[in-house]
Amino acid sequence: MADEASNPGTPELVIVGSIGIDTIETPVEKQNSILGGSVSYACAAASFFTGTGMVGVVGSDFPDEYTALFHRFGIDMDGLQRVDGETFRWSGVYEEDMNSRRTLSTDLNVFADFSPELPDAYRSAEFVLLGNISPNLQLHVLDQVKQPRLVMADTMDLWINNTRDDLQKVIERVDILTLNDSEARLLTGTGNVVQAAEKILAMGPGSVIIKKGEHGAILFTGDGIVITPAYPLANVVDPTGAGDSFAGAFMGSVARDGDVDGGVLRQAMLYGSTVASFGVQAFGLERFKSLSEDDITHRGEELAGMVSCD
Amino acid sequence: MADEASNPGTPELVIVGSIGIDTIETPVEKQNSILGGSVSYACAAASFFTGTGMVGVVGSDFPDEYTALFHRFGIDMDGLQRVDGETFRWSGVYEEDMNSRRTLSTDLNVFADFSPELPDAYRSAEFVLLGNISPNLQLHVLDQVKQPRLVMADTMDLWINNTRDDLQKVIERVDILTLNDSEARLLTGTGNVVQAAEKILAMGPGSVIIKKGEHGAILFTGDGIVITPAYPLANVVDPTGAGDSFAGAFMGSVARDGDVDGGVLRQAMLYGSTVASFGVQAFGLERFKSLSEDDITHRGEELAGMVSCD
Repeated sequence: MADEASNPGTPELVIVGSIGIDTIETPVEKQNSILGGSVSYACAAASFFTGTGMVGVVGSDFPDEYTALFHRFGIDMDGLQRVDGETFRWSGVYEEDMNSRRTLSTDLNVFADFSPELPDAYRSAEFVLLGNISPNLQLHVLDQVKQPRLVMADTMDLWINNTRDDLQKVIERVDILTLNDSEARLLTGTGNVVQAAEKILAMGPGSVIIKKGEHGAILFTGDGIVITPAYPLANVVDPTGAGDSFAGAFMGSVARDGDVDGGVLRQAMLYGSTVASFGVQAFGLERFKSLSEDDITHRGEELAGMVSCD
Repeated sequence: MADEASNPGTPELVIVGSIGIDTIETPVEKQNSILGGSVSYACAAASFFTGTGMVGVVGSDFPDEYTALFHRFGIDMDGLQRVDGETFRWSGVYEEDMNSRRTLSTDLNVFADFSPELPDAYRSAEFVLLGNISPNLQLHVLDQVKQPRLVMADTMDLWINNTRDDLQKVIERVDILTLNDSEARLLTGTGNVVQAAEKILAMGPGSVIIKKGEHGAILFTGDGIVITPAYPLANVVDPTGAGDSFAGAFMGSVARDGDVDGGVLRQAMLYGSTVASFGVQAFGLERFKSLSEDDITHRGEELAGMVSCD
């Protein structure tokens, strides 16, 4: 599903994040113990575009079929640690409108002692996605990579509330910060998304992507704004991981183009939104299993047509 | 600000709705007794594009300066009734995030007995916008117009909850229904916007526009979907009337083009969103007073650039 890395053993894109076994309940259906976690979604999404290396941790209970699935996506697993103990587990329930969810339980298990160690080959990666994990782990990855051309970091309310100093350091060192609109408001203390984006850009990163769920995402850079709506879906089955899929496909698209100019980021926004829309049409990574590059191209063109003003 | 009507005395676009004197409180500022009402916003917005006739009612207390303002916008007032009594008054307060508001008081006054009577010349209008008033008044207007090429109706939760049978008749007789996302959910009993749009199209109209406030608007037709984001603003001063301005500019743009094909509707969505974005940058109709066609063209191009995928 991806080209070979230009340096032997070095994936074009390295992604770090959580790997979990999720139990998810929606108004329609409940699924027990399915594969989840930020790096699972992000790597699967990125794998449609570029060579992707995964950095994460699983326990001794992690099913072989999930490892086989990562392999099937062409994900490089040299950065995947397998340690004694149980894999991270999360369970949550979605409200009727599918836009908000409650966490029912979180068992960190082996993730509690996780320290992301990059294989030597990964340290030369040109593109790095710091998935949604604690800022101090994100910083530890930043300390290991050599000269990446573009680093994007995701974050969440937990880190904004509890580890803001470390998060601030991450924000100062990355090229793009991605977070959702309520998190952007929380981080900056402003209710207006444009003002929030301006405050985040003033913290250091060249760009910020504010995700708005079913309303799409907005990229703010010093040069301007790119607005990408979500692909309108009549049936959202499971929104879990949509932001991770968005980020993975975004970075995968940038890495495939190998450039970081405005046009490339604009295209990456479209692919991020497109791939995320497929992801939410089934539980977990299910929809990605049967997804083709043609599917992505076709829906991406369809979405581009919906927003075109010509 | 607008071309002459092709038939003498017949405006290209006729708009019916409420005219009010509003008292509006935002987290930042309060303004007392300013010009408002759905037809005021919609006609002002439409006046930048086409010859527009206003159908509404005011009381004997209605200030001359407001009539003078309508005149300055080039709005035809042959359909404006002035009757003894007080003008409709409304007051409301916006929450911190400016996305939700509470009505503090509503005094219908002369609006309570309003019956929209169209001057003979208005009955030949090719384009008609039924602003947000009770469905039985909208039906009364539909009974008077001869052969309009395109009729759009706006509505709100009040009519969905209280006069659904009449509203159903309106929906069956118009070409486009416009309403916001929560109203679309209420009308159709479905939480998903795409499903809601499909259910509304099945009721009769060729198109439905679902407004999403700061997230823009989506046009659903039998042929496809057009997504138009809101123009990102760092400072929203007063969101009152944004939906009315959107609808007015949309219909004004369609009437100016004089056609109703897909490309025209797409362009009208862009102008609707653009003009609405100017409107919310000041209280009431204040921003429209100094707005130029160049301003609209320029921001429209800017917004088109933000969503372009090229």
